[in-house]
Amino acid sequence: MNPTVWLVGAGPGDPELLTLKAARILSQAEIVMVDDLVNPEILEHCPQACIIRVGKRGGCRSTPQAFINRLMLRYGRQGKRLVRLKGGDPCIFGRAGEEALWLRERGVESEIVNGITAGLAGATQCGIPLTLRGVSRGVTLVTAHTQDDSELNWRGLAQGGTTLVVYMGVARLQQIQEGLLSGDMPSDTPIAMIEQASTPQQRQHACRLDDLCEQAAAFKLQSPAVLVIGEVVSAALASGQLNQMLSADPEPTNLLNPAT
Amino acid sequence: MNPTVWLVGAGPGDPELLTLKAARILSQAEIVMVDDLVNPEILEHCPQACIIRVGKRGGCRSTPQAFINRLMLRYGRQGKRLVRLKGGDPCIFGRAGEEALWLRERGVESEIVNGITAGLAGATQCGIPLTLRGVSRGVTLVTAHTQDDSELNWRGLAQGGTTLVVYMGVARLQQIQEGLLSGDMPSDTPIAMIEQASTPQQRQHACRLDDLCEQAAAFKLQSPAVLVIGEVVSAALASGQLNQMLSADPEPTNLLNPAT
Repeated sequence: MNPTVWLVGAGPGDPELLTLKAARILSQAEIVMVDDLVNPEILEHCPQACIIRVGKRGGCRSTPQAFINRLMLRYGRQGKRLVRLKGGDPCIFGRAGEEALWLRERGVESEIVNGITAGLAGATQCGIPLTLRGVSRGVTLVTAHTQDDSELNWRGLAQGGTTLVVYMGVARLQQIQEGLLSGDMPSDTPIAMIEQASTPQQRQHACRLDDLCEQAAAFKLQSPAVLVIGEVVSAALASGQLNQMLSADPEPTNLLNPAT
Repeated sequence: MNPTVWLVGAGPGDPELLTLKAARILSQAEIVMVDDLVNPEILEHCPQACIIRVGKRGGCRSTPQAFINRLMLRYGRQGKRLVRLKGGDPCIFGRAGEEALWLRERGVESEIVNGITAGLAGATQCGIPLTLRGVSRGVTLVTAHTQDDSELNWRGLAQGGTTLVVYMGVARLQQIQEGLLSGDMPSDTPIAMIEQASTPQQRQHACRLDDLCEQAAAFKLQSPAVLVIGEVVSAALASGQLNQMLSADPEPTNLLNPAT
């Protein structure tokens, strides 16, 4: 039996970064359950569908997961063509895997459709070459927000040799800064903070690790945002691309640390 | 000035996993330089364009990078609408960042368009929840293939608490196995090997870390392939989804280790 429930990534914000598959499935949907972080323009692909908004934003009040699950289960069992539309990639901190497992245990099959995740899109928009050869061996995507408030293995992350991309970190900047410093990441490691990646509202700012909290406060960093941490940020600064974007920033102060 | 050179991700293989933006830019291209790993069906979006094939496959003979760069530069300076089409996400081990920097230094602006990267698509296709809460704190994408044959920081990667996704690892399975074991990753850590992710030719197989080389040989693992390493693979096995796919595998032997 083909699934009737699709867990679909809406991409990072730019409605053109939707996949062809997501657009097709949306155009065939009867019901679309939409997360907060999804760009409303994407719903233009499904004018025929009944839209249910199920806000789900890190740290904010939102529809309880149990309610969302029960709703998906009910429509799935009815054989409705249901799309659960999530920001970014539903498999990267989007709980699509959990929801698919939960549904499967109850006899409802689903299919996940990947999307462009915000961290990778944000870095690209800022000209940051995440896996630049000779500088970075890869990229690590982590979330600073956890179910049980357990701490990340900061030393492992600081020493892994990969560029770090931190999701949902705005409320935990101090833990991130202290964690990475205590894990012996150099204090002058460059960081780019990118708000609302790939949208017309995108804002970005660069600073050093030991200045993260102060600079984020001065920049008035707001969710949703990602942090890109590692020497590859310097490549974007050296090329002028990130600098150019920073100087075009609406904020009055250029907070780039001259030591970088 | 708007860029005339686009470095575009073709996605992991499934032509429907192309973004709307990539499809639009392809439909407007005059020249498309295509990598080996790109699904030829994607070129149906650009019947008007002159296609130049520039094979570029890990470890194989291919068009030299210097030649590709010069060609991009020439067309870019001529103001041709040039698309450089790469498999997956051009920013994840795709050198788009490098090429953009190189062009920029020579006065040619380019724009990068993200694609769905093979590692994330492969995991999704196998039902592996890469960032399952309580099991994994994130995901690390690394390449086993390097410019200078330097080793990865295996201990940092083994201890980071994130799911590992290894690209271009087929020729370096022994180093991966030994590196992770020497970094104290548990020997029974489950691994999924996924060949040609998201295409009709996709094949997958699961094994334990201490069995990786033997099982990959028995499975006749070929490039292009990704390895997904971590306890989240167990979740896919427990849910039955990966098992189901494995038992539907054309290979005669079920190589799943009963200890997993």
